[in-house]
Amino acid sequence: MGLYLHDIPLGEAKKLLENAIETAGLWKTLESEIISLDENAVGRVLSASIHARISSPSYNSSAMDGFAIKASESIGAKPTRPITLKNGVNARYVDTGDPIPDGYDSVVPLEEIGPINEDGSISRDVRSPFSICIRASVVPWKNVRSLGEDIVETQLIYPRGYVLRPVDLGVIAAAGYSSIEVARKPKIAIIPTGSELIPLGEKPKSGEILETNSLVLAAKIREWGADAFRFEIVPDDYEAIRKNVIKASEEVDLILLNAGSSAGSEDYSARVIGSVGSLLVHGVAVRPGHPVIIGIIKFGKRSIPIIGVPGFPVSAILTIDIFVEEIIAKWLGRFPKEVEKLDAKITQKITSPSGDDDFVRVVLAKIGSEYLASPLSRGAGVISSLSKADGLLVIPTGIQGMEAGERVQISLLRPKSEIEETILFIGSHDLILDELAEFLYDKKRRFISVNVGSIGGLIALNRGESHLAGSHLLDPETGEYNLKYVRKYITNYSVRIISLAVREQGLLVRKKNPKNIRNLMDLLREDVRFINRQRGAGTRILLDYNLAINNILPEKINGYNQDEYTHLGIASAIISGRADCGLGIAAASIAYNLDFIPLFKERYDLVINKNFAESGLLKPLYDVLEDSRFRKYISGMKGYDTELMGKIVMDTSI
Amino acid sequence: MGLYLHDIPLGEAKKLLENAIETAGLWKTLESEIISLDENAVGRVLSASIHARISSPSYNSSAMDGFAIKASESIGAKPTRPITLKNGVNARYVDTGDPIPDGYDSVVPLEEIGPINEDGSISRDVRSPFSICIRASVVPWKNVRSLGEDIVETQLIYPRGYVLRPVDLGVIAAAGYSSIEVARKPKIAIIPTGSELIPLGEKPKSGEILETNSLVLAAKIREWGADAFRFEIVPDDYEAIRKNVIKASEEVDLILLNAGSSAGSEDYSARVIGSVGSLLVHGVAVRPGHPVIIGIIKFGKRSIPIIGVPGFPVSAILTIDIFVEEIIAKWLGRFPKEVEKLDAKITQKITSPSGDDDFVRVVLAKIGSEYLASPLSRGAGVISSLSKADGLLVIPTGIQGMEAGERVQISLLRPKSEIEETILFIGSHDLILDELAEFLYDKKRRFISVNVGSIGGLIALNRGESHLAGSHLLDPETGEYNLKYVRKYITNYSVRIISLAVREQGLLVRKKNPKNIRNLMDLLREDVRFINRQRGAGTRILLDYNLAINNILPEKINGYNQDEYTHLGIASAIISGRADCGLGIAAASIAYNLDFIPLFKERYDLVINKNFAESGLLKPLYDVLEDSRFRKYISGMKGYDTELMGKIVMDTSI
Repeated sequence: MGLYLHDIPLGEAKKLLENAIETAGLWKTLESEIISLDENAVGRVLSASIHARISSPSYNSSAMDGFAIKASESIGAKPTRPITLKNGVNARYVDTGDPIPDGYDSVVPLEEIGPINEDGSISRDVRSPFSICIRASVVPWKNVRSLGEDIVETQLIYPRGYVLRPVDLGVIAAAGYSSIEVARKPKIAIIPTGSELIPLGEKPKSGEILETNSLVLAAKIREWGADAFRFEIVPDDYEAIRKNVIKASEEVDLILLNAGSSAGSEDYSARVIGSVGSLLVHGVAVRPGHPVIIGIIKFGKRSIPIIGVPGFPVSAILTIDIFVEEIIAKWLGRFPKEVEKLDAKITQKITSPSGDDDFVRVVLAKIGSEYLASPLSRGAGVISSLSKADGLLVIPTGIQGMEAGERVQISLLRPKSEIEETILFIGSHDLILDELAEFLYDKKRRFISVNVGSIGGLIALNRGESHLAGSHLLDPETGEYNLKYVRKYITNYSVRIISLAVREQGLLVRKKNPKNIRNLMDLLREDVRFINRQRGAGTRILLDYNLAINNILPEKINGYNQDEYTHLGIASAIISGRADCGLGIAAASIAYNLDFIPLFKERYDLVINKNFAESGLLKPLYDVLEDSRFRKYISGMKGYDTELMGKIVMDTSI
Repeated sequence: MGLYLHDIPLGEAKKLLENAIETAGLWKTLESEIISLDENAVGRVLSASIHARISSPSYNSSAMDGFAIKASESIGAKPTRPITLKNGVNARYVDTGDPIPDGYDSVVPLEEIGPINEDGSISRDVRSPFSICIRASVVPWKNVRSLGEDIVETQLIYPRGYVLRPVDLGVIAAAGYSSIEVARKPKIAIIPTGSELIPLGEKPKSGEILETNSLVLAAKIREWGADAFRFEIVPDDYEAIRKNVIKASEEVDLILLNAGSSAGSEDYSARVIGSVGSLLVHGVAVRPGHPVIIGIIKFGKRSIPIIGVPGFPVSAILTIDIFVEEIIAKWLGRFPKEVEKLDAKITQKITSPSGDDDFVRVVLAKIGSEYLASPLSRGAGVISSLSKADGLLVIPTGIQGMEAGERVQISLLRPKSEIEETILFIGSHDLILDELAEFLYDKKRRFISVNVGSIGGLIALNRGESHLAGSHLLDPETGEYNLKYVRKYITNYSVRIISLAVREQGLLVRKKNPKNIRNLMDLLREDVRFINRQRGAGTRILLDYNLAINNILPEKINGYNQDEYTHLGIASAIISGRADCGLGIAAASIAYNLDFIPLFKERYDLVINKNFAESGLLKPLYDVLEDSRFRKYISGMKGYDTELMGKIVMDTSI
């Protein structure tokens, strides 16, 4: 086997890994173990088919509460000419499930007999009268469940490789088992390496990164039916890594060596694997993920596969999804898990490097009858995209991207039912949207906001790509908000405009305002670096309007052409030192402990596609806007006035 | 609150239970607990929203391995006029993730710089050369991930009520958490009662039933996120049941009192509940399930809801699915689980009592582009239907049934992907089919066989309700098998007929043949009770043919009109004493340890709808028929000859 130092195609890498495991004699179901048939058996995989050891029922039993009789003795019984049978002589009481007494062959249900006393009067003791009368003849074996009617001894119950659900345990138990033979759980070590890593719970200082990967990897591995062993963080030290790899190889079936995110860290992994075994692959043409390393460690007579997992969280997860789940499935003797697929339309053009299999995370929503997929941030390090992602779109090698509107197949990361409860907002960013999402979650709605600015939001709404937009666009000619822009940009649908809040806009500056910035005129100062919002953002239009009023030329402002997509992006740029000030909302100053210099008030409206305005999906949105707890909460936020909240500003019709 | 002694509608029963829990002050999320953020957190429910405690990145960091520079010093750099920067003076090496050193504002990736030695020659040490040259100018903040770019402090990460997946743990960890606040797990006691019950592992004697319910109930409860406490079996003894209920009420949030299957057993539950609290409902109009009991126990100042769960396994499971999952969801503060739905066409008429909500178990398969649902046995005690069921069809109160071909919505009990891997066989029963199912499972096909006899199978195939049928129909005029019947019954589709095996048919009798039955003539004896196969079964046609040859009149045979649907059904009738003999296959004698008197040989064929004959779905079927291991296994079974296995008998075309 040669060493591949450059990225090789995904399929080839998988084949190499499988072949190496095969060559080592390990591409097969692991040995089995006998476990007790209890609640812990759920999710385990049968390593031998289960055939019934006993029949069920295991005897002829009554299917009703009633009297066992001989059918032949009921012949001729009619309502007008009942036949009387003596209890204990030719009739015997049986509960449901009781064996049919010897010599009897059928059961008359309790509600169909007449209980009779010795003197011929009606008995009140329906279960043990002196005698019973029956008013209709019965056929033999009526109301009798005969031996084996349900399960027959030797019959196949579940085949080898079957994964047990709760209900299956009952069936296996009824077939006569109290223990079962299952594949033992594969043991997988996760070794996090990287001198920059710190354990959870510590507060990262500059240059430090929280070690979150081993937690996610372990949780996924456990969900796939294997046992995960998380090692302590190992610094970037060849000997320390080597020592831990050797230790792991004595105890587990597979090692995941999680490199730090730097190229240097990855080199250590490759060197260590080369020193204790053979390095098979260094780099796989998959995005995000690239620096995947694959090798086999030799340890005495044993061989242990090892995978060098990239450090970036998104790459790390994708790597084990692709490589590890299948190995676990093979070792357990089950089939790899199948991910539910969904046909969707993509909302934005996606470009992709043609040499890689590209895994794009998307958010999904159902807009009308169509599922729409919007790509999320592509960075391998962007961990927040993991919490947002609803699905994965794979753009295979050789395809350079996809056009907006193209139909694609998405692998779901959440159940479809959750996606159908999703309200998709595309538009201007406001911190109220976070609170709205929280309140809506209580009403079983997922509220996803994609922030593209006010105009971007109206354009998306007009393309039918969202349920609603958020907009705060000032018309410089009239001083009115949003109406003109809605009329201009929304031509395909009728919409309803509802006020969300009136909010303050102003200058965000570092705490205590070290550069003593007071108003827009200060943006002209040479020592002041400004950070702007993107084109189409209402905040930028507001700025431009006020610059014009004050006769300030944009090109005189240092940083006018640097832009960010959200208020928090502006705040972040200031706190991180990239800029000294930017225009934004008051609430954004809180998150970063910035100072805020109020300048303007503006109305922020929701613009709702009329097709959904009256739908059950959006109903909870109005409920929240009317909810006094919500209004109170928002009023308490800095710079918000909720007096207009929920008021209909205008209905348009096309 | 009044007591309802008769069945009340399901919705009403749920409302009464909810109100009673509400009145007791318990219809709310349970108290929360702080747990460590580790693998065990998967599936837990957040009891407080999670907002980011720290930003990510928590500092300005390099997005690449490369050199940090000041963007302003790169102005004017071109390939033809590179700018040289001195390492350590105005350029500093950074790994991906490293902080941007003070005074720097952008990063040039390693592959874009030229490393230079002090003497101006090209350096081989690309990470620590004397100086670097750059060939293009960069903009400020290029390749820099700024503080909060991914997660911003205070930002909402997950709302209260969110159920954690593996990947979520990483996001929460990155947001600065090492422990989280979740709802504590509800504690639920399961008390099995019934003197007829015996623990798993024992072999049931007549009148004894294995206690399988508590296992299934516990496993389901655990899957829903609660802790289950299984009590020992309590006999039908008022005081013993009462003592256990009181004990449980001191320890748990909810008690499930699993009655035995008899009416008597159920009475104990009701009396005990009445004695320690109040009985609210006795009987719910739901099928299977009826004898559901609902009450509230008062214990000092505490109130504990109690549900009397019916004893039949199918009823027991349905009862907790309906009542318990929602209570657990409420207590955990999450939404009830949504079951995936599927639109399907039912294959058989279903009748239903109009006063009940009727939950019908079905098997599902995709035939062409259509999902077809076939109802399974309706008995509440038929535990095997649980292993077979793919979904539930609810026939609501007021509807008396459904016609074959009606479109319905099925709640799925298995993932859709498994249903799409299902081969649906409808036809004559043969024990080979079990083995075939086992071999096919290894090839990722679920093989479901519905046994309706040879002719029934051909009719179903002709209606497009199955992928294939199984048939062994003798044409009395020609002595040929199946061809005439296929031509007669299959008029809508072209089919391919493939031989499965030649098998022996004969008389099944009890071990050592106590009645000394030798041939068909013995069926005329008065002391011999026969059990027949149903009309349309190949075995019955074979019998009739041979009766005619031997001039035996069917009406002279004792039991000719008693019938069973499978070979095992015949065997079961004999072993249970319902009959002395029946016509069947040799293999059926093994399962029940019967004797077999061989009489005839016959050919059993598979009849495959041509639309699927060449499909990927059925491909593994041919592979199994060619598999020497399979042939060897079947040849080893009593009474089978596999010489013709897999041979094409005929292709028809319409």
